Amino acid sequence: MTDKVVSVYGYGRFGRLWADILAEDFRVKVYSRRGLHADDVPAGIEVSDAQGIFHCNALFFCVAISSFAEVLEKARPYCRRETLFFDTCSVKVFPVRWMKKHLPADSQIIATHPMFGPDSYPPQTARKPAMVMCNVSAGAALFAEWVDYFTARSLQVELMTPAMHDRMSAYSQGISHFMGRVFEDLHLQPTAIDTHGFTMLLEVMAQTCSDSRQLFVDLQRYNPYAGQMRQDLRKSMDKVAATLQLFDQADRHR
Amino acid sequence: MTDKVVSVYGYGRFGRLWADILAEDFRVKVYSRRGLHADDVPAGIEVSDAQGIFHCNALFFCVAISSFAEVLEKARPYCRRETLFFDTCSVKVFPVRWMKKHLPADSQIIATHPMFGPDSYPPQTARKPAMVMCNVSAGAALFAEWVDYFTARSLQVELMTPAMHDRMSAYSQGISHFMGRVFEDLHLQPTAIDTHGFTMLLEVMAQTCSDSRQLFVDLQRYNPYAGQMRQDLRKSMDKVAATLQLFDQADRHR
Repeated sequence: MTDKVVSVYGYGRFGRLWADILAEDFRVKVYSRRGLHADDVPAGIEVSDAQGIFHCNALFFCVAISSFAEVLEKARPYCRRETLFFDTCSVKVFPVRWMKKHLPADSQIIATHPMFGPDSYPPQTARKPAMVMCNVSAGAALFAEWVDYFTARSLQVELMTPAMHDRMSAYSQGISHFMGRVFEDLHLQPTAIDTHGFTMLLEVMAQTCSDSRQLFVDLQRYNPYAGQMRQDLRKSMDKVAATLQLFDQADRHR
Repeated sequence: MTDKVVSVYGYGRFGRLWADILAEDFRVKVYSRRGLHADDVPAGIEVSDAQGIFHCNALFFCVAISSFAEVLEKARPYCRRETLFFDTCSVKVFPVRWMKKHLPADSQIIATHPMFGPDSYPPQTARKPAMVMCNVSAGAALFAEWVDYFTARSLQVELMTPAMHDRMSAYSQGISHFMGRVFEDLHLQPTAIDTHGFTMLLEVMAQTCSDSRQLFVDLQRYNPYAGQMRQDLRKSMDKVAATLQLFDQADRHR
């Protein structure tokens, strides 16, 4: 695979990391709508323009979920038949729908969610970082080739449909990010008497709030299952709180 | 201090651990309302009856918060002038009120909250387990002697008033236990794509739900600040959720 030219469209927190990872195996080109100079990227990575970035064998979109549909609309005239398209969004149902709608009809498309970022890669533990992959319209052999490649790069490839991914992540990544922002709004802070459990809540807050607010909002808004998750969370909170109300207040004052 | 006789009233999860810790330095007697045989306790610890347990220099009540007022009412006739009374409840305002009300008027009383249990003691990290102490009515020298003793036992003694303790712990221990029970009600479970943050939420759930349901209920009901904490939590959840509603649903379907 190493003779391939691979493009990274978008050069934010994740795009930067992703380009570095891919550059270990491919000739990598990067593009940012905000503009990039050769000085902004590590040696060996090429800065490309809005049109040149599409001259490649594979292109990874590493843009905010909320700007992805617009990016795709603008991309269409530059897309080339030999390019395999990937997204890397943290939700999958809507991005897949957008790619099918806006990319040329015969495009080969693979949806992915690399479940790590600059804070967690390279991993500090023996556990491999997960990489979700859904084949949208690539040939089976080409898809298998990329699955094998990411597996060889020590990622734990998980194959699932966009709906499976979004449902599962609403009740894992989605709930952590939501609670992290709730704890932030509550101004939770370390005390002299922190329990182990509370220390972990503080860590969830710190970790999720180090991601951009845009990512948080997009994770909630563009995951079709996140609204239900938030409703379930609220229902469980009310249910647990209600069991406490059965108590007769007067009993406390004996 | 080692010539002292120290009683542990209540022999549940915490009383058992506490008796073992104290038995390293004192002659320890234990009593349980459920009844105890000599076989139920380690060698060196003495089983006492409902009256004999009060023949001691210091007595630690290790009973459920919700039964403490009743235990104190029954204890009154057996209390002796030479005994220093301690509670070990996870909340402090109500237990202190109950001790002042039910123990003989001239009793020396110290309120404590040893912030560890069988799951976290002995500690696995270098961080010392915290031990909250409030002097209710003990002589200053006697109080200092016990502060020094627990400090020498490698506990991080934190001095604070009952109200300070309950306010602080409502927003640390209280919120962790509440969220742990909410996550349990939601049936959260590990997935193939757990993020680090989600793994920590699962750990909070497992840890807090390994304590008895009675402890959870008592922590919430008998902490005068817990109701406000739960209201604040709900308000923050609604606030964070509301910021997401500003989004135009139609925008997702481009």
